[in-house]
Amino acid sequence: MGRAAAIRPLREVPAWDDEADVVVVGLGAAGACAALEASSAGADTLILERASGGGGTSALSTGQIYLGGGTPIQEKCGFEDSPDEMYAYLMASCGPGADEPKIRLFCDDCVEHFHWLVAQGVPFKESFYGDGSYTPTDDCLSYSGSELAHPYRDIATPAPRGHTVQQETIEAGAILMRRLLDSVKRSAARTQVDTLCETLVLDEERRVVGAVAQVEGKLRHFRARQAVILTAGGFINNTEMVERYAPLLRKCKMRLGCDGDDGRGIRMGMGAGADVIRMDTASIVLPFTVPKSQIQGVMVNRQGQRFINEDAYQTVVGEAALHGQAGQVYLIVDDAIYEKPFPPTEIAAVGETFEELERELGFAEGSLQSTLELYNRGAQRGEDPVFHKAPAHLVPLVQPPFAALDYSTETAIWAVFTMGGLRTTPDGAVLTPDGEVVSGLFAAGRTTSGLAAQGYSSGLSLADGTFFGRRAGRAAAGRVARC
Amino acid sequence: MGRAAAIRPLREVPAWDDEADVVVVGLGAAGACAALEASSAGADTLILERASGGGGTSALSTGQIYLGGGTPIQEKCGFEDSPDEMYAYLMASCGPGADEPKIRLFCDDCVEHFHWLVAQGVPFKESFYGDGSYTPTDDCLSYSGSELAHPYRDIATPAPRGHTVQQETIEAGAILMRRLLDSVKRSAARTQVDTLCETLVLDEERRVVGAVAQVEGKLRHFRARQAVILTAGGFINNTEMVERYAPLLRKCKMRLGCDGDDGRGIRMGMGAGADVIRMDTASIVLPFTVPKSQIQGVMVNRQGQRFINEDAYQTVVGEAALHGQAGQVYLIVDDAIYEKPFPPTEIAAVGETFEELERELGFAEGSLQSTLELYNRGAQRGEDPVFHKAPAHLVPLVQPPFAALDYSTETAIWAVFTMGGLRTTPDGAVLTPDGEVVSGLFAAGRTTSGLAAQGYSSGLSLADGTFFGRRAGRAAAGRVARC
Repeated sequence: MGRAAAIRPLREVPAWDDEADVVVVGLGAAGACAALEASSAGADTLILERASGGGGTSALSTGQIYLGGGTPIQEKCGFEDSPDEMYAYLMASCGPGADEPKIRLFCDDCVEHFHWLVAQGVPFKESFYGDGSYTPTDDCLSYSGSELAHPYRDIATPAPRGHTVQQETIEAGAILMRRLLDSVKRSAARTQVDTLCETLVLDEERRVVGAVAQVEGKLRHFRARQAVILTAGGFINNTEMVERYAPLLRKCKMRLGCDGDDGRGIRMGMGAGADVIRMDTASIVLPFTVPKSQIQGVMVNRQGQRFINEDAYQTVVGEAALHGQAGQVYLIVDDAIYEKPFPPTEIAAVGETFEELERELGFAEGSLQSTLELYNRGAQRGEDPVFHKAPAHLVPLVQPPFAALDYSTETAIWAVFTMGGLRTTPDGAVLTPDGEVVSGLFAAGRTTSGLAAQGYSSGLSLADGTFFGRRAGRAAAGRVARC
Repeated sequence: MGRAAAIRPLREVPAWDDEADVVVVGLGAAGACAALEASSAGADTLILERASGGGGTSALSTGQIYLGGGTPIQEKCGFEDSPDEMYAYLMASCGPGADEPKIRLFCDDCVEHFHWLVAQGVPFKESFYGDGSYTPTDDCLSYSGSELAHPYRDIATPAPRGHTVQQETIEAGAILMRRLLDSVKRSAARTQVDTLCETLVLDEERRVVGAVAQVEGKLRHFRARQAVILTAGGFINNTEMVERYAPLLRKCKMRLGCDGDDGRGIRMGMGAGADVIRMDTASIVLPFTVPKSQIQGVMVNRQGQRFINEDAYQTVVGEAALHGQAGQVYLIVDDAIYEKPFPPTEIAAVGETFEELERELGFAEGSLQSTLELYNRGAQRGEDPVFHKAPAHLVPLVQPPFAALDYSTETAIWAVFTMGGLRTTPDGAVLTPDGEVVSGLFAAGRTTSGLAAQGYSSGLSLADGTFFGRRAGRAAAGRVARC
């Protein structure tokens, strides 16, 4: 898998082939935003991209960006939000490893960030899509997390914060990157494609002073007079790294990422002395909420027990199902709510009664029955006293036949990408295990461990990459303090 | 927390204050075994220990070592075991990140390792202690894992593998270290105490060639002609590292370790280019099995549901309770099995009926009741069809009053230490993120990520540290291939 962590000592660099104040490695959303800010702060900026054009995984994404605190779109669509409510939601939902300083900054400056994206030409329609997180239309705003679900609805006033870029004939992620790349073209930043970075160059003081890359089969050396910014994606497409750092993910069928997500950026940083954190964490999407009526179903484990409120966001359900239930889960539906789900999965068992369904599944006698009876008793009153699913999704399952849809990792499509990476300050400065700054090195996007450790809400990666990419760009250009 | 990762370039070393073929950092069980083997392989060996004497966390431990495959003690006590059965158990129980090559080697060579420990003077009585994992007597053998519990009892023929060093008036861990330290004294290895290693020295080729240490307030430089072996413990006593890598552990009251477990060894390795893995994993002991009758209780979460068979080993229950239930669990007992537990915890609620107990706990109506009724129906038949607790522990809860013992992290004592660390080969060679060897660097014990990632059985850390410490010592002495 290459020798990205084997840094090149400056004394072994024969000559520089090109140079700039700031060298950006990777041209996805984070790299584009870093380069734009570094360039507009006056730094001579050179972007090195391995593919034949920019875009990366961001261009393959749904183009949904988690933004809030009172954006113009939220206001136009009649949703109140504030930085503090957004902060309360993210701090509660992002797990015990949530990065508080990053979350605080992000929430406080989010509206400004929205305007900056618009200024780069990124289009958002002033409209709300109410039928799920993913917007198949050209609409913008949607609920893309667990804001309406227990316990978050009682912790922070819910507001939709998923901002999907306005789609045309191509998808929103591609539009987002097209517009950002156009902006990069208009800027003074230079882009060199087909340039696969191999490792970093360090001087005798262990300062990062450049990068080595493959260009047309030859090694080229790029000097960074001020800093290198690593924005080279995560490691979901490096099987060895997944096995090593996040072995549970191996069970999941669909890996969300492009070829560049081979962990190279993370290993380059580690070779230069960087710390890595939360390498076990991931966005784990269990897509079971289309049609939306499926949220009225009852998710159970192999013991016939519920383990979460089914209206929690599909990543939160996926995380709980993978980590707590080894990815062995079923969705119980009745005939009234059953429609063929998308993406499709298999029906594991059908029964005219709960008892028959339980037997067909091979569950212990009385296990699934007592779960469903308890659920139905509450649902009849419009309550879920055990897991607190919202009343809107509470309908007793009474219409036979009943079916168990197989949402195990073996059968259903689970979609994952990694969330762990280099540890950085809110300005993108890369830190060592001792908590010191790696001189001359910045990072952003999925090469870093961002603001969220767990409890992923859709759009957080593009938010993280664009927002902290910009900060890294500005810091690398030397215009703000480095830490 | 020091600058352990800030390596010292060789050119900045003014002069060597001492030198050896092999320098061992830390004199716990792993360090002692590494030094003994390096020394007996002919290497001039120097041990540097920060405290005023050897012992480390090993000396504070219960002195239980996980050994099997047919040791003389197992045979004398009438238990059959084989390397293959031991391998099957460990591979099934140690989680998705189990280190297969290490487990294979360990199981195959375990009997030899037992004899080696005896040859160092470590005493084991030929006796079996049947009343739990921890042996308060001078007995040796006990079940110290989940061997008898579902699903492991069906995967591998159960055998007790906890080998506790024979205790006298002092505890087994202290005896173990006293004997190993005596053996070190008899060897040619030299020991220098009160010597706090600060960081490693690297030459221009990034080869580890020595260590820098504080001795009586002054920096001293120790040359390692062949290799440094890091055996400096884990990071449970470095709050900042716990927050960063394993934030869930912050909830647990009792941190098992000595001052040396400040993560320094891990950071020294990282500074030299090492990879770290499974930094989120830990041994998480929820000590609820004294008196043993408590295993007949029913462990439930805040939803009034069971989540594991209560006869799984207390570390396995602890892991499931912390990761899956946020550490919010209760043990339900009836009057027939209730005795004051040790360590003590609080009674959260008492009720004459399941219904009353459920209400007192504030659980949803019918939730705990249906769990306990389902449990009792099975227990009456000597079965646990849902979680498969072994018949020996299945007694219906029928004798009021019923009580809920509070085993939440807030109230009960949970005891934890970290399991993540440097990634090493089975010979202890430290690896980079690219999978290459860090030249001149070896490691063992809790400074490394050992054979187990999850599903800890007691005695595995001393086993890991002593067994792979020896291998690291031999490899560092240059007598076996470096892998």
